Amino acid sequence: MNDADDDLLENTRSEPGEVGLVEPRDFIATGSFTFDNGQSIPGFTLRYETYGHLNAARDNAILICHALSGDHHCAGIHSLGDKKTGWWNNLIGPGKAVDTNQFFVLCANVIGGCQGSSGPSSADPRTGQSYGITFPAVTIRDMVRTQKLWLDSLGVKSLYAVIGGSMGGMQVLQWGIEYPSFVKRMLAMATTAREGAQAIAFNEVGRQAIIQDPEWNNGHYPKSGGPRVGLAIARMMAHITYLSDTSMDRKFGRKAVAAHHKPAPATDVSELSMEGVDPVAPATSFNVQFEVESYLRYQGQSFINRFDANSYLYITRALDQFDLASAHGSLETAFAKVEAVTLVVGFTSDWLFPPEQNRAIAISLLRAGKRVSYAELSTDLGHDSFLLESPQLYDLVRGFLN
Amino acid sequence: MNDADDDLLENTRSEPGEVGLVEPRDFIATGSFTFDNGQSIPGFTLRYETYGHLNAARDNAILICHALSGDHHCAGIHSLGDKKTGWWNNLIGPGKAVDTNQFFVLCANVIGGCQGSSGPSSADPRTGQSYGITFPAVTIRDMVRTQKLWLDSLGVKSLYAVIGGSMGGMQVLQWGIEYPSFVKRMLAMATTAREGAQAIAFNEVGRQAIIQDPEWNNGHYPKSGGPRVGLAIARMMAHITYLSDTSMDRKFGRKAVAAHHKPAPATDVSELSMEGVDPVAPATSFNVQFEVESYLRYQGQSFINRFDANSYLYITRALDQFDLASAHGSLETAFAKVEAVTLVVGFTSDWLFPPEQNRAIAISLLRAGKRVSYAELSTDLGHDSFLLESPQLYDLVRGFLN
Repeated sequence: MNDADDDLLENTRSEPGEVGLVEPRDFIATGSFTFDNGQSIPGFTLRYETYGHLNAARDNAILICHALSGDHHCAGIHSLGDKKTGWWNNLIGPGKAVDTNQFFVLCANVIGGCQGSSGPSSADPRTGQSYGITFPAVTIRDMVRTQKLWLDSLGVKSLYAVIGGSMGGMQVLQWGIEYPSFVKRMLAMATTAREGAQAIAFNEVGRQAIIQDPEWNNGHYPKSGGPRVGLAIARMMAHITYLSDTSMDRKFGRKAVAAHHKPAPATDVSELSMEGVDPVAPATSFNVQFEVESYLRYQGQSFINRFDANSYLYITRALDQFDLASAHGSLETAFAKVEAVTLVVGFTSDWLFPPEQNRAIAISLLRAGKRVSYAELSTDLGHDSFLLESPQLYDLVRGFLN
Repeated sequence: MNDADDDLLENTRSEPGEVGLVEPRDFIATGSFTFDNGQSIPGFTLRYETYGHLNAARDNAILICHALSGDHHCAGIHSLGDKKTGWWNNLIGPGKAVDTNQFFVLCANVIGGCQGSSGPSSADPRTGQSYGITFPAVTIRDMVRTQKLWLDSLGVKSLYAVIGGSMGGMQVLQWGIEYPSFVKRMLAMATTAREGAQAIAFNEVGRQAIIQDPEWNNGHYPKSGGPRVGLAIARMMAHITYLSDTSMDRKFGRKAVAAHHKPAPATDVSELSMEGVDPVAPATSFNVQFEVESYLRYQGQSFINRFDANSYLYITRALDQFDLASAHGSLETAFAKVEAVTLVVGFTSDWLFPPEQNRAIAISLLRAGKRVSYAELSTDLGHDSFLLESPQLYDLVRGFLN
C-alpha cells in the first residue's frame, strides 16, 4: 500500500477514539476442570476485560488471544493518567481496525498465566498453598477450552472473529478446530502450527536459566522472590528473538551509553545491580557499554516485576508442545472441520515464526478446502511486527472484519 | 564446484594424511606487556602448537587464529588413541588444504583465554592469586600483538598466511593492519569488521547469565567451581547462534527423546541435574522432552568442564568492542596500509556474522586498492560452516594458498 492510498483512506475515516478506562473482571469456574494431561483442578479463574457491547443477537463478539508475555489488558487504561495502555491499544478502539463501536471485544489472561488467571502462582484451594509446579501442565487447547467456558458464561453465542498473534495465533487455530461452528472468522498472525527446533531451543535455554537458578527451588518460592535472575536472563534472550537484526541495528547499532548512564530504574532490582564490580576492576568493567545492553537489561528487569517464573515455564512448554499436524495426523486433517473464514498474516522479518510457517497454515487450510487468505507484510521489525504501528496491518484487519 | 570437478581433482591428489601426535608448548614472555587499555602485566604465557617445519628462508609459516571457544589445539591428537582431534583437523595436515608438508602451521591460545595462555584464571605473579577480573581488558589487537612477540621468538620472519574464522577472522584482519609487511596473505571467514547490535545483544545475555550467577562472586571463584550454571546457559544460547534454523530442523526437528534418555554424562554436572524435579510433579516435568533440548544441555555441560567463565566475559567483550571502522575512521582507512593478498569467505546461512558483513570487508579492501577476493559458499549449516567438512572450502583454501 502506498502513501497516496493511505491519504485517500484517511480522508474517509473518522478519527479513531480510545477505549479509555477499563476494569478487569474475573470469571470464576467452580466446577472441576480436567486438563489435556488428565489432571484436574477443582475450579479456576480467568481474569478478563471487555470493550464495546454484546449486541442483541449476541453475535458481534471478537475474542483477542494474547502471546507468551501478554495478558487480558489489550486496550484502554486502568486509571486516569495511566500512561501505559493495553498491549494492542493501537488496533482496538472506537473507529480503530477492531472497532469497539461495532464489536464486543474480549480478552482473558490464559490459564497457566500469572496476571489474575489461575496458574502456578495461584493458591491451590485444597492446600492453601501456591500450586507451584503441581499445577497441571497446560496446553494451547486447555487455554481455548477454559476460554470457551468463560464465553458461555457471558452468553456469547458465537465469535464473529478470534484474533491473535504468536501464541495468540496458535489459540486462534485451536479455536477454529475445537469449536468449528462457534468461530466465524480466524485471524492468525506471526504464528505457527508447530515450532521448529530453533524456537524450541531458545525456549529451552530460557527454561534452564530459570530452573538452574537456585532461587527456583523446584518451583517453591515466595511471590516477591523466586528465580528473578533466571527469569530476567530468559526474557533478555527471548526479547532478541522478537526483534530483527535490522531493527536492532537501526535502533541501537553500536551506540555506546553515556558514561554516567544508569542501565535501569534502581527500584527492586538489587540482584541485577552491577555496583559491586566497578571498584574491583575499573578497566575491566562488565558494566553496560552499548545501548543495546542497557535496553536488554531494562527489558529483563521490568519483566521480573510482572511475570511469574513458573508461568514462564508452563507457557513456553505449551508453545513447544503445540503441534497440530502431530495431534491430528496432518495439518489438513487438523483443519478438516474448520468452518471459519481465515486470514493468516506473516511478516517478512519474523525469524521466530517465519513467513514460511504462516504460509504453511494457509496452504493447509486451502488443501482442506477452506476459505483462507494469506498476506505477507514487508516489515523489518521482526516477530513483534504484529504488535507495532502498521497502517497496512490495520487495513488488512479492517478489511477482513468488514 | 560440481562433482565432476571434484572427481578430477581427487585423481591428482595424494590421500591426505594426519598430523598425528602433537604436544602443546609454552611461549613465556618475561617482559612487561601493556594492553590497549594501558594496563600492564609483568609477563605472559601463550600455549601453542605447531605442525610441519619452518623452512630455511623462514617464510612458510601459516598462523591459524581461533574463535571464541577454540584453542591452540587445531590439528592432530594429544595421545595415541585420542579420539578427539584438533578443531580444524579436517583442514590442516599432510596433503590437506593447509598442507603441513609444505607449510609450518602454528596456532596459539589467545591472551585472555583459559587453555594454557595467560588470562583471568592464571596466577598473578605479584599476588600468587588468580587474576580474576583484575586481568586487564583484552582486545583483538592485544591478541595479535602478543602473537607477534611469540612468532618473533620462534624466528618466523613473515607469515605466508594468517587464517581464521569468526573471532579468528577478526585477528586475521588485525594482523594485516598491524603488521602489513609481515603478512603476505589474509584468509578471513565467517567474520565481521564489527558486530551488529544483535550479536552484541546475544553476548551480553551470556555475560549477564555468568555475572548474575551467585557463584561468579565478582570473578573470584575456585578453578573447580565458579558460575557453572551461568556459563552453561551462555553456551547453550550461543550455540543456537552458531547453527541455522534449517540445520537444527534437519538434525533434531521436533523429535522427542526416548523415555529413559539421560540428557548427558552424569560426571561432574550435578548442578544441571533435573533429578529433583520429577518426583514432585510427574505430569509437569520440565525434564528434557525434545532431542534439541538434550543436545543443548550436553553442549552446556561439556563446555563448563573446559572453559573459564571469566575468560568468556573477557573474550566476548573483545569481540563486541572490535570495530575497525571506528578505530581508524573508516574501514577503507583501516585497510590503507595492508600489503597482504586477501580472501574473504562468507557463508549464506551464517546469521551471526552474515555474508553482508563479510562482503563489506572485501569491498572496503577493494576500495582501499588492495588485492582481495570474496567467495560466498552456499551452506545451510550456519555460522559453524567454516569448521565443518566442505570440499568447496578446502578447494578455496588450497587454491588461495598455492
